[in-house]
Amino acid sequence: MIPFHSQQEIPPASQLVDGGVTAARGFSAAAAACGIKDQDQLDLALVVSDRPAAAAGVFTRNRVQGHSLQLCRQHLAAGRARAVVINSGNANACVGPQGLADAAAMAQALASQIGCSPQEILTGSTGLIGQRLPMDRLLPGIQQAAAALAPSDQAARQAEKAILTTDLRPKRAALAVTLGGKTVTIGGMAKGSGMIHPNMATMIAVITTDVACPADRLQALLARAADSTFNRISVDGDTSVCDKVLILANGAAGNPPLVADSADEAVFFQALRAVCSRLAYQIVADGEGATKLAIIQVTGAATQEDARLMAAAIARSPLVKTALFGQDANWGRILTAAGYSGASFDPSGCEVWLGDCQVCAGGQALPFDEDRAKAILQADQVLVRLVLQDGQAEDGYLTCDLTDAYIHINASYRS
Amino acid sequence: MIPFHSQQEIPPASQLVDGGVTAARGFSAAAAACGIKDQDQLDLALVVSDRPAAAAGVFTRNRVQGHSLQLCRQHLAAGRARAVVINSGNANACVGPQGLADAAAMAQALASQIGCSPQEILTGSTGLIGQRLPMDRLLPGIQQAAAALAPSDQAARQAEKAILTTDLRPKRAALAVTLGGKTVTIGGMAKGSGMIHPNMATMIAVITTDVACPADRLQALLARAADSTFNRISVDGDTSVCDKVLILANGAAGNPPLVADSADEAVFFQALRAVCSRLAYQIVADGEGATKLAIIQVTGAATQEDARLMAAAIARSPLVKTALFGQDANWGRILTAAGYSGASFDPSGCEVWLGDCQVCAGGQALPFDEDRAKAILQADQVLVRLVLQDGQAEDGYLTCDLTDAYIHINASYRS
Repeated sequence: MIPFHSQQEIPPASQLVDGGVTAARGFSAAAAACGIKDQDQLDLALVVSDRPAAAAGVFTRNRVQGHSLQLCRQHLAAGRARAVVINSGNANACVGPQGLADAAAMAQALASQIGCSPQEILTGSTGLIGQRLPMDRLLPGIQQAAAALAPSDQAARQAEKAILTTDLRPKRAALAVTLGGKTVTIGGMAKGSGMIHPNMATMIAVITTDVACPADRLQALLARAADSTFNRISVDGDTSVCDKVLILANGAAGNPPLVADSADEAVFFQALRAVCSRLAYQIVADGEGATKLAIIQVTGAATQEDARLMAAAIARSPLVKTALFGQDANWGRILTAAGYSGASFDPSGCEVWLGDCQVCAGGQALPFDEDRAKAILQADQVLVRLVLQDGQAEDGYLTCDLTDAYIHINASYRS
Repeated sequence: MIPFHSQQEIPPASQLVDGGVTAARGFSAAAAACGIKDQDQLDLALVVSDRPAAAAGVFTRNRVQGHSLQLCRQHLAAGRARAVVINSGNANACVGPQGLADAAAMAQALASQIGCSPQEILTGSTGLIGQRLPMDRLLPGIQQAAAALAPSDQAARQAEKAILTTDLRPKRAALAVTLGGKTVTIGGMAKGSGMIHPNMATMIAVITTDVACPADRLQALLARAADSTFNRISVDGDTSVCDKVLILANGAAGNPPLVADSADEAVFFQALRAVCSRLAYQIVADGEGATKLAIIQVTGAATQEDARLMAAAIARSPLVKTALFGQDANWGRILTAAGYSGASFDPSGCEVWLGDCQVCAGGQALPFDEDRAKAILQADQVLVRLVLQDGQAEDGYLTCDLTDAYIHINASYRS
């Protein structure tokens, strides 16, 4: 399936749930305002399972990695966790050995509140680089939030808000499936707006589920789901130092533990992938300064890698993204981006479509109705298709337009 | 030498000349307005040698290539040329077999005017993709321009204007060196403003010289000069379908033909590289919407490729470029870009400098004077240095800031 081909579709056997990280059984959430962001804004989120859970994660591939992320990776090596603690407003990155000690203190503070080992706590920080966390405010905040932990949807919504940085809107998704006669729920939250790009750019997602699933399978399923969702979005092409997708699976649904490559596992995977896709979609829709989304689809490529390279180059091109903002059917920029993507393809066989309006055939300009193209480009969501005659491979990307609002947000983020 | 380390320096043994493509002996230029761009704007340029010249070129690596560029490559295979004809306003790309026929007609028209074979004409087109050239106006324009060919500086200035698209300013450079007792002159012109990126993005440069040099050496020297100049600049990261650097060397200086790896060849190369560097610098300085330049330098890298990857990622990062626009000392974005560049390096050993203000040491934040950093970032040109402890390799890039003016220019270019 091409990523984002039908991102709002509910997989067969799944049903939509109105909820977030507390939708699955046995999960609580809470938030606090520690003064890391501007006063009174929520900037600390907790997600806690009432029992030990299998845990997995997918992390940024940036060579520079934040200290909270480093600790999280260490703790995740065991494949088990009880809780996640995340602060926003400060990335806890590039501050030296103190950064790892501060992350450990965050884990310790939550562990002592909920009664587990600090190794069972997964830590995350997102925001500015190069400033030490204000531990004198953060540790009391963890205590305060832990006291307020609740399995309610309201608590989930508070946690969703607390992880945001430049986002305008909180992001959530939840689905339920039936496995072995038991209802299994998957819910999640995400943050991310600018600096979004494959390999866990400036985004964090936390997914909770009550499925019973061994940690090694959970890791494989999460990696595969992220690959066609969070790894197929681009807002501005940067990839940050401290971002990740985490999942906790606590088994509270009581299903027989998932068996590798079973039918039940496939059903669970489709639902997990749909939750990831919905969260990823919301991240791009909230792209910094964005006024519209574009789904980029490349079909008929010789290889999967060619399709991916072309879709990624089109999704990243500042010229494609500004043309989308300008509602300008400048399809030459789409073909140009494919051309410099590094992919092999035969330009003389390609078609370009904007929605259902074909603008290029056989690599050549087609006369088209400018008014019709304009109407297509005025919509909130535009489908851009590059159709090749080189093979059967296909891939897709989700991107947004590049606007003057993006410039204003990012020219003044720090100050 | 790091690219752009001292881009305004005149190499030893060279001297600055006030001129362009007619500075070298035996070259004429002319321009005409054919109505391809808005009325009365020059959009056709000719550069003609009064005798056959050795010729070489470096071309876009985009898989999609414009028809005028395709013909130019075919003609250049012989290593000889008499003249260059370039139109702006229309890229003559993606219009089917007619495009190559139109390019051939351009070459034929000029060849018959100056009395040579069409194979000795190098063709170029830059501008919009997917529209046929208006041959009914272009061919008479070639005739008209050919009748006006002159070896004057005024003619060179007309040609410089005629190749521009979204550029605000024409671009020229010329240097002279003494080889075997003869004065050899190298002069050039360039266009390029948006869509600038390594591997001949939306830029065209034409360089003329009266040196005597075999075509195969000319090709090697041009490729090497372009690699540390035109291939080390970035405005928006896109690479277009029809762009190139051409050089004609007509031997009119009367120097003994350059011998491979001789001292004279080295002197010539330094001057050629300086001309390319000056043209490349002017392209970035005229970057679409740019308010300032940034020279990115990476030193102490383990390998040359690591240094190049890091410099390129920093130069391309929309977040670094918007921070430059905002005069914001947000050095975390610089380190982040290095981190996702694909280069191997030890983050714990790196320093970041803005001008002479160090903001990061040992991979950690340093306290620094915000006012001093702000003053450095307010200048028209900013030096950004990433200093590693991994080895001796170094590289550099020239980039510009990303501004709201860039968005406005590119959201409305076509319409």
